[in-house]
Amino acid sequence: MSTEPEKWILMATARSPTNIAVIKYWGKRDETLILPINDSISITLDPDHLSATTTVAVSPSFESDRMWLNGKEIALTGGRYQNCLREIRNRAGEVEDQEKGIRIRKEDWGRLHVHVASYNNFPTAAGLASSAAGFACLVYSLAKLMNAKEELGELSSIARQGSGSACRSLYGGFVKWKMGSDANGSDSIAVQLASDTHWKDLVVIVAVVSSRQKETSSTSGMRESVDTSTLLEHRAKVVVPSRIHQMEEAIKNHDFASFAQLTCADSNQFHAVCLDTRPPIFYMNDTSHRIINLVERWNQHEGTPQVAYTFDAGPNAVLIAPNRKVATLLLQRLLFYFPPPPENDLTSYILGDRSILHEAGVQSPKDVETLVPPPEAKDKVPNKRYAGDVSYFICTKSGKGPMLLTDEDQALISSETGIPKIVT
Amino acid sequence: MSTEPEKWILMATARSPTNIAVIKYWGKRDETLILPINDSISITLDPDHLSATTTVAVSPSFESDRMWLNGKEIALTGGRYQNCLREIRNRAGEVEDQEKGIRIRKEDWGRLHVHVASYNNFPTAAGLASSAAGFACLVYSLAKLMNAKEELGELSSIARQGSGSACRSLYGGFVKWKMGSDANGSDSIAVQLASDTHWKDLVVIVAVVSSRQKETSSTSGMRESVDTSTLLEHRAKVVVPSRIHQMEEAIKNHDFASFAQLTCADSNQFHAVCLDTRPPIFYMNDTSHRIINLVERWNQHEGTPQVAYTFDAGPNAVLIAPNRKVATLLLQRLLFYFPPPPENDLTSYILGDRSILHEAGVQSPKDVETLVPPPEAKDKVPNKRYAGDVSYFICTKSGKGPMLLTDEDQALISSETGIPKIVT
Repeated sequence: MSTEPEKWILMATARSPTNIAVIKYWGKRDETLILPINDSISITLDPDHLSATTTVAVSPSFESDRMWLNGKEIALTGGRYQNCLREIRNRAGEVEDQEKGIRIRKEDWGRLHVHVASYNNFPTAAGLASSAAGFACLVYSLAKLMNAKEELGELSSIARQGSGSACRSLYGGFVKWKMGSDANGSDSIAVQLASDTHWKDLVVIVAVVSSRQKETSSTSGMRESVDTSTLLEHRAKVVVPSRIHQMEEAIKNHDFASFAQLTCADSNQFHAVCLDTRPPIFYMNDTSHRIINLVERWNQHEGTPQVAYTFDAGPNAVLIAPNRKVATLLLQRLLFYFPPPPENDLTSYILGDRSILHEAGVQSPKDVETLVPPPEAKDKVPNKRYAGDVSYFICTKSGKGPMLLTDEDQALISSETGIPKIVT
Repeated sequence: MSTEPEKWILMATARSPTNIAVIKYWGKRDETLILPINDSISITLDPDHLSATTTVAVSPSFESDRMWLNGKEIALTGGRYQNCLREIRNRAGEVEDQEKGIRIRKEDWGRLHVHVASYNNFPTAAGLASSAAGFACLVYSLAKLMNAKEELGELSSIARQGSGSACRSLYGGFVKWKMGSDANGSDSIAVQLASDTHWKDLVVIVAVVSSRQKETSSTSGMRESVDTSTLLEHRAKVVVPSRIHQMEEAIKNHDFASFAQLTCADSNQFHAVCLDTRPPIFYMNDTSHRIINLVERWNQHEGTPQVAYTFDAGPNAVLIAPNRKVATLLLQRLLFYFPPPPENDLTSYILGDRSILHEAGVQSPKDVETLVPPPEAKDKVPNKRYAGDVSYFICTKSGKGPMLLTDEDQALISSETGIPKIVT
């Protein structure tokens, strides 16, 4: 190295979105390489509302690889982090910063330790695919730092080895993770089906559902499903391939009715397979069921799908409306059945793009109280309201893929000390 | 007819058990004849605790077919009642009661109207297969009244046309409903696998779970599953046939571990198919899930199945223990997690065979309060208790099939008036 050792710190910071699968990934054919048993399709969510920001730094002064998640140091010993680091190091290029007097040759990367700081702009434990955003961001920022000039597809295959669904967060818009067939996983990569501008009317509302149950991790859950469910193989081999094809068509043609029908059916089938696992896995709870029933009654009343719902490995609902008008009607329904608890104000109850509240005519908790039951509820069910069963809603939309943040103010690691600016 | 018209009344009274499927029936291949898409296996429950009692009467003075259920008159226009009536009338024989001076020839039955009174010794609306007990009892008592000398198998095929699972209530013990292959349904009958004395150590505890949801009827639910689930056909054609074989072996060999594993897996798969239906059907709620988790944690802790669970088209759990010792441990666990609500005493909270309470060392609500968490709960879950989530428990066992009640005191219809003794 051509500069005074022990002094310089080189950094890169990126922001990566999370994503929600509309055709679900459930089951691996290879646990180590994280190779799935079927294709999956997702929507990338707007990073303004749901994303990870990650700063990666190298310096000859760093004595080991270290990582901080939301300001708290975590062990980097997990094989998944090491796999991502190793794969990017193997692809690292030459880096020269003449201003700072730094020159790193390819062969130097193996000797340089990294510091990683990552931060989610949404609750990490809420079951909102934080690991997808996190691993996508780690791989993307490391690739930028180490000048690994790989295509996004190849980076997606590395992110996949951190967390399967992370590979889909390398692109914005609509993304397909192709299961591939190679034993080494080289063709198990993400491809973009359409950018975030292709179907930009879609509105996404996430309902973060309060849960008192300890949940099965998706890693162990899908392993148990592969081992014990007598329905999963039929799903993966027969049902999903046809749905993937239909979903690609629906997205291409902005066919919301088909999109919604496939999204709901595939979410329900994923949870059906969980229930068919030994011991059975329950990710949805009574609140999740109520949200589904709310949507199904509405869809049935209108005779055509108004809204799609999908649930990942937890009770949270992700609701997708075809446009702002329907999203407004949805938010009114959600607030009618799930008003904020008495002590809560709307600012902490509706997050993300709050402008939709204005269109819904709801400015205060008082306005929520005066909401009337939706027409489809008449005579069907008692209009019970469930304050406290939803923690909060996030209003968002489809968004872009990872981006580099070049403003040093946005870096999470201090360029002086090499450790996070904020440590908790 | 050889007696003074308009005067005499001829009656028969029978009692029939309900049954709980351990390999589930879900889906018809013929809606009218009620022909299933797979075999099923059930346990007949003790009629002392869960049964229907039915009195059927004929008289030349009756002007129409009428029926009272639990003292309330209901319409007999439903095709299912008419089908059962017609099939028995077609098989009616000659009846002579010299004492009363009654002689009914085969051809007279078509002109005689019947009065039917039926009573369940358990709550009808609680989702405890009251229609299975009811139709079995209707067919059995009509056959006795009309001297239809059919084998139980043929009667089961008639009861099947009232309510599919009713055919399994024609026998005690363990019963298989063979799906059959004839288009006219003649070979879709129940057969007894083993009598109620074959595996008499088994103890059954039913948890009647409080529910606020309106439930999908099983008739429309299974129709929607057949029409929309992409997993049901695979279940019916591939999974169930192998499970039926294994279940028969497990019953034959008193192999509780296999019995429990198959029972739980098949209940879960039935509910998985419901979830895979469009719109999805949820019969189990958070309380059902908690009961399953309680059993699964216990089974896992012991390394071998202690207890089996199974759920029909509703949130109620049917729990099966291999013997009284394990049933006592089960009841302690159930009462720990689901104590009676404060205003409730144990007499209305534990129904059926209450002797097991004594063995569990629980005599009063005070004893329930002092129950300690089970060993498998340690450090796993917070020991939250859910008073009010279970309405009551019924302790019972496997029991006998239908029986004729010859004591006229047990008849539900007055031999003087031809209408029920008690009308509400």
